[in-house]
Amino acid sequence: MNQQLAEALTYARDRRDAFLARFQELLRIPTISADPAYRAEVRRAAEWIVAEMRRVGLRGCRLLPAAGHPVVYGEWLEAGPAAPTVLIYAHYDVQPVDPLELWQTPPFAPDIRDGKLFARGAIDDKCGVMVNLHAVSAMLATAGRLPLNVKFFFEGEEESGSPTMAACIEAHRDLLAADLLIICDGGSDEDRPEIFTSLRGLVAAEVMVVGPARDLHSGAYGGLIHNPLHLVGRIVAALHDEDGRVRIPGFYDAVRPRSAAFLAALRAQEEAEGERARRKAGVGVLWGAPGPGVLERKTTQPSGDVNGIYGGYQGEGMKTIIPARAGFKVTLRLVADQDPDVIAARLVAFVRGFATETLKLDVRILSRSWPVEALGEGPAVDAVQQAITATWGRPARLFRGGGTVPVVGAFQRELGLPVTNLGFGTGEGAHAPNEYYVLSYYYRAIETAIHLYHALAEKLAPDGPA
Amino acid sequence: MNQQLAEALTYARDRRDAFLARFQELLRIPTISADPAYRAEVRRAAEWIVAEMRRVGLRGCRLLPAAGHPVVYGEWLEAGPAAPTVLIYAHYDVQPVDPLELWQTPPFAPDIRDGKLFARGAIDDKCGVMVNLHAVSAMLATAGRLPLNVKFFFEGEEESGSPTMAACIEAHRDLLAADLLIICDGGSDEDRPEIFTSLRGLVAAEVMVVGPARDLHSGAYGGLIHNPLHLVGRIVAALHDEDGRVRIPGFYDAVRPRSAAFLAALRAQEEAEGERARRKAGVGVLWGAPGPGVLERKTTQPSGDVNGIYGGYQGEGMKTIIPARAGFKVTLRLVADQDPDVIAARLVAFVRGFATETLKLDVRILSRSWPVEALGEGPAVDAVQQAITATWGRPARLFRGGGTVPVVGAFQRELGLPVTNLGFGTGEGAHAPNEYYVLSYYYRAIETAIHLYHALAEKLAPDGPA
Repeated sequence: MNQQLAEALTYARDRRDAFLARFQELLRIPTISADPAYRAEVRRAAEWIVAEMRRVGLRGCRLLPAAGHPVVYGEWLEAGPAAPTVLIYAHYDVQPVDPLELWQTPPFAPDIRDGKLFARGAIDDKCGVMVNLHAVSAMLATAGRLPLNVKFFFEGEEESGSPTMAACIEAHRDLLAADLLIICDGGSDEDRPEIFTSLRGLVAAEVMVVGPARDLHSGAYGGLIHNPLHLVGRIVAALHDEDGRVRIPGFYDAVRPRSAAFLAALRAQEEAEGERARRKAGVGVLWGAPGPGVLERKTTQPSGDVNGIYGGYQGEGMKTIIPARAGFKVTLRLVADQDPDVIAARLVAFVRGFATETLKLDVRILSRSWPVEALGEGPAVDAVQQAITATWGRPARLFRGGGTVPVVGAFQRELGLPVTNLGFGTGEGAHAPNEYYVLSYYYRAIETAIHLYHALAEKLAPDGPA
Repeated sequence: MNQQLAEALTYARDRRDAFLARFQELLRIPTISADPAYRAEVRRAAEWIVAEMRRVGLRGCRLLPAAGHPVVYGEWLEAGPAAPTVLIYAHYDVQPVDPLELWQTPPFAPDIRDGKLFARGAIDDKCGVMVNLHAVSAMLATAGRLPLNVKFFFEGEEESGSPTMAACIEAHRDLLAADLLIICDGGSDEDRPEIFTSLRGLVAAEVMVVGPARDLHSGAYGGLIHNPLHLVGRIVAALHDEDGRVRIPGFYDAVRPRSAAFLAALRAQEEAEGERARRKAGVGVLWGAPGPGVLERKTTQPSGDVNGIYGGYQGEGMKTIIPARAGFKVTLRLVADQDPDVIAARLVAFVRGFATETLKLDVRILSRSWPVEALGEGPAVDAVQQAITATWGRPARLFRGGGTVPVVGAFQRELGLPVTNLGFGTGEGAHAPNEYYVLSYYYRAIETAIHLYHALAEKLAPDGPA
């Protein structure tokens, strides 16, 4: 092991408590990007990160103005022109926290129990920000330099669909130029680190149905007035056929056909993957369109899910009303080569097909993202695997992902960068109550990151061993 | 006009401010019977009414224990055996108040604006309690007696479907014996008092769908796990056919066929009724099964409405989850001769027909009430009309009602009493935000009640002019 790497690792091990304290400080800021009520808190976190970047020795640290929440940018470009330049991405915003009553401790008061750090954002994805900064801190404090050139791009609106990121990336095309993009989001499946080789795209929408001028008495008006919830039910029911296939006309038209060899490779993992998904979800039986296997459905087939329905009385007992309005939120997950603009237009047309003279119907697209095909092999993937093997004892599992990191599609389309991935979040509960990070894996992730910077310098340098 | 009646009216006119103050005191107690959190408040209101009854001079004032919220009972039986005995019903509980943000002033802080008294329960139905007690107070304070025997039965769980009232009435069958039941609930349509001659029955239910052990990421699990909201949508959509007819098998089997003459009488009022319903609901177009007219649909046909759907994220923006659970509340309105037990069983069977191995499905019946056919003519209706004509200048409109007063069916089945109706609530917003009573009509209602007691004594006495 080279000397600089070894010294940085030792430094990091000696400063675990100090690093943890910084991480907890960021976790205390409620950066719920989807809720406008938290706007000032998101900004406060961004400014906190800028200060932290400066503290660890990065240069050019600043906020990139975006129409939504700001991007935090910082760089270290003194490794020389022969060294590769890597753009590292993470996001500092988090999911909403409801249902709040299911949290054992408050989501923004980090709490350590049984070796686990509980907090919203612990694994998704404030660790992506902090683990990188801890690694930089260790390397600059010991060697006084980094082994490669890095640019950090920490997003503040990932969990609300990155609505303004494409424009922000386009506006900073030169600033963000690099040889490689590494997405530090995601992480591991239980104890095994994972590297995604694809991501699904996303179209998110809200459908609103407006009926009477006010909530009506369901006795006096039942049978006379069209109930907005009934139309909501009708649209939601129509979204899928009996087998679970999405019924939006043309939805599957652009889905990339896969070769027999490709599908055979996926099917080889089917049994283990299906059982794992079933167990982790806590259900007795999986669901979905018959024919394709679990991995094929999750990574080469699009899907559609209603994420919430609202309207009428939701409290204890009963309230005999016809509600004045109702609505629902829906997300469609896209695969190559579905175009989110085309799918959004088809969703809107599908919903508008339910228009009636008895109710007002509106559909609003909240977010749209391209699916991504990332690197599956080559020196960048080798470097990530080297860092993981050095700290986890075995390489990561390459996998095709069902989720979406909306900004990745924008990076691919705007900057034309190859993309790979190293997530640092090892725990459970992303997007759910009681999100936690296994604390020992947090310390390990810092070492993985230090290894990664050195491995990338070695594998990507034009004169490196590659 | 007889002397005692005239003196009582004068007395009531002189004490309007004092009466209003008492009414406001009761309106300040949040008697939301459907929400267990308000249990103690419901009881506090019941005890307040007992004290108020004693204060105005009633006898035997007490709470009748019920398995749910207590009934307030009081009587005055000193008019002698030749005078009729009338059982008078009202309810002191109220509907929930959400959406609270739509109230201009807090629902339990009575506020007078533009000659209107705004408060939850102002017209539905705390006025039914207080107007009767004001009238008794005026008659006892002037004549020292009432012209007939009365028993008051003030219910505390009408707005939660009167789940324990049938048992309570059965347990007090002798105490409640009377010649006539008058339901003091409902009131007027805009400025015209109304008397119902029928009510719809009710079956209320909650359907719950349970899926994964926790909310899941819709990217990682979309297409693999059955989303509880999708099954909710499917059941809600299946409740009605395209024309709005309820699709529960056998739902219409017991509906009483109506004679051509009966339907012709309803149809004569169709045009005005339809336009009024459309305007009051604030919609452009009415809705419902084609064929039957508006009045026929509302009063001789059953209906079904989903009153609320819950599940998943309902806040601003998006949250990309598959929720762990979802559900909905539904009310079916029944007409003669539908049996609520039979309909409840058919609803349960219908919902259970959607059972799947991928989701847990449960349905719970919250309430069931018989439809009612009330008096349409005869001395009791004549007495009510005499009281209304004396104070409103013209008789009430007889109408067939679409709503439900659950306890009335129980009274009819347990006590075998003829039933008529005199509601005192003249305003808007029953079951909705900003419920209000037109203040001048409140004072008029007190005089209507005084007239009513005298008119009933005159029309119902065996030796009266009838």
